[in-house]
Amino acid sequence: MNATTELTGCEVGYDIPAVPGMDEADIQTPCLMLDLDALERNIRKMGEYARAHGMRHRSHGKMHKSVDVQKLQESLGGAVGVCCQKVSEAEVFARGGIADILVSNQVRDPLKIDRLARLPRSGSRITVCVDDLANVAELSVAAQRHGTTLDCLVEIDCGARRCGVATPEEAVAIARAIEAAPSLAFAGIQAYQGAMQHLESYADRKSRLDDAIALAKATVEALRAAGLAPAIVSGGGTGSYPFESGSGVYNELQCGSYAFMDADYGRIRDRDGHRIDQGEWENALFVLTSVMSRARPGQAVCDAGLKVLSLDSGLPVVHGRDDVSYVNASDEHGVIEDRHGVLRINEKLKLVPGHCDPTCNLHDWYVGVRNGKVEAVWPVSARGKSY
Amino acid sequence: MNATTELTGCEVGYDIPAVPGMDEADIQTPCLMLDLDALERNIRKMGEYARAHGMRHRSHGKMHKSVDVQKLQESLGGAVGVCCQKVSEAEVFARGGIADILVSNQVRDPLKIDRLARLPRSGSRITVCVDDLANVAELSVAAQRHGTTLDCLVEIDCGARRCGVATPEEAVAIARAIEAAPSLAFAGIQAYQGAMQHLESYADRKSRLDDAIALAKATVEALRAAGLAPAIVSGGGTGSYPFESGSGVYNELQCGSYAFMDADYGRIRDRDGHRIDQGEWENALFVLTSVMSRARPGQAVCDAGLKVLSLDSGLPVVHGRDDVSYVNASDEHGVIEDRHGVLRINEKLKLVPGHCDPTCNLHDWYVGVRNGKVEAVWPVSARGKSY
Repeated sequence: MNATTELTGCEVGYDIPAVPGMDEADIQTPCLMLDLDALERNIRKMGEYARAHGMRHRSHGKMHKSVDVQKLQESLGGAVGVCCQKVSEAEVFARGGIADILVSNQVRDPLKIDRLARLPRSGSRITVCVDDLANVAELSVAAQRHGTTLDCLVEIDCGARRCGVATPEEAVAIARAIEAAPSLAFAGIQAYQGAMQHLESYADRKSRLDDAIALAKATVEALRAAGLAPAIVSGGGTGSYPFESGSGVYNELQCGSYAFMDADYGRIRDRDGHRIDQGEWENALFVLTSVMSRARPGQAVCDAGLKVLSLDSGLPVVHGRDDVSYVNASDEHGVIEDRHGVLRINEKLKLVPGHCDPTCNLHDWYVGVRNGKVEAVWPVSARGKSY
Repeated sequence: MNATTELTGCEVGYDIPAVPGMDEADIQTPCLMLDLDALERNIRKMGEYARAHGMRHRSHGKMHKSVDVQKLQESLGGAVGVCCQKVSEAEVFARGGIADILVSNQVRDPLKIDRLARLPRSGSRITVCVDDLANVAELSVAAQRHGTTLDCLVEIDCGARRCGVATPEEAVAIARAIEAAPSLAFAGIQAYQGAMQHLESYADRKSRLDDAIALAKATVEALRAAGLAPAIVSGGGTGSYPFESGSGVYNELQCGSYAFMDADYGRIRDRDGHRIDQGEWENALFVLTSVMSRARPGQAVCDAGLKVLSLDSGLPVVHGRDDVSYVNASDEHGVIEDRHGVLRINEKLKLVPGHCDPTCNLHDWYVGVRNGKVEAVWPVSARGKSY
């Protein structure tokens, strides 16, 4: 182990959980581990799906926050660019060479607007969402100051009841203001229904999406009638992309979680009633953990608690094991029910996190594994970029 | 704002949410903000309490993960050292010059044991918890290899039902093995009852602690009878420290959250039935957030979601405001109920997080504020150090 440390110039453990070439068994825990074969199959499959359905796919970088994963989505999966939620994430993707970046969110703070407007000077196309007329003027002034152009999508509220305008009329008014504003270009609409993605039943998800599609369609028609036909109608997540793809209204998908999967998405059902992690997508992301105490009969304690696993969507699932289960998390510990006492100290378990996005954001590194060897160690490039 | 950027050599927003000297109003959100006056009062108060009760206070660094906050706890509050949960945290505190470091946890992985055993060479005293005889030999071999001494506390399970031995007899057996092992020193017992800290009722907490104190007492007596009188009997958190302090058994406290406070701890009651955030401790930690959308009547959306606020212990509370409340979190957004429509775009709110420890671990920086000015910007030194 010391040899490895000296070879790499940084310390395994202190700085990084693994280095390429290491055996999978030597990875330091807890850490994020990617099954590279599964990841690549998921990425290729989504790319083929989008192509077959005449859709562009803009992969959601808020999930992985990784320039390396995004590049794989573009090279293997034909993704047309990235979307993300924060200006600081967009800056990371631009510095990483991603050419087409959508901030699928509102930007209102003056310094953030200034940073966003400067970003096209990196050479990347930058698009942002707008749901308020006053924001149009703010963006235009900043883009003029930097001599750049910002593309703008008008966001409509498809049922998430969060951001976005409520009616086609409001959307037309904002689109018209964008079109008239110097240094801004009206590029289309953002119509993402986030609130239904995790509903278990296919029929329930479809019903919510039918409403979203109806509003998107009415908005597109109102824009066309106003001479503002939208080039991009963007939306769709891992729980909804078949609906947007078959809508005849949308032309761009924004799926993220399909690439890694997680326990919460895994539970939702496809149209035939099958869990989507059993055939549709593979679990490619794990939190690798080690057993560190067996002081109490019937249980083991592992080194992965809620500082490495976001619990907002439930507890993690122990992958590939029916005999043990993760039953409780504290800050740095996980309690594993082990009725038959089969676990041993330092035994490793692969946990499928409840929710991939905030779990990835807790870590600095992805350890990519193939055939029992560490093949890639990628930074979580935009980890913590929330401002 | 650009002037500030050029002065500091790093970019406010991209790299850091603020720089010293800035007005509080210009801080980039979302970020961790510390009220330095409140923090210093909390730290001084705990120091005075410990001194008055003849207790040592070893402040828990797993909460703040900050060398700077720890130094303040030592200089203003008389803390005798730090405790933390991971070897990688201990490495950060040792590199930061903290002289007395307890890893209040088991270390079982061979590489982690090697790193731990190397650490006393930095000049810091290093102590670790043990709950398994086999671990004694592992630690001893590693400390001999590095020519160091590791102090060891035997951990007893005080009711958290996680790690730690169950009986005084087991504790004596492990203490004897430590005492006999080359390069290890038996330093005492770890007797922390974590499971009761957040119970709202003082009487409920006291009842659980009475059991913990009884077991700690029986263990101390068994150790004394075996000629292994423990120098340190350590335990006690923000929800229990009066009980350990009055026990006549413990001589060291391990409180962490008292310094920052959070919404979950704030709800617990003191012996007179008062919330402990109303008089006992002040809220010194906030997640500063900005309003970014008011597209729907009766609500506002802010820029702080579950990537900057750990939700494991509930939603954050909007500090100092009765008119608005934080009602829902998604990854990057928080929904604020605003019945009277009083919030404005870019208005800032101070959120008291549900749980301070995992919330701090989501951030890179503490922005310390006094009298409306940014006075300190401290790194969350051990952020993400989970291995």
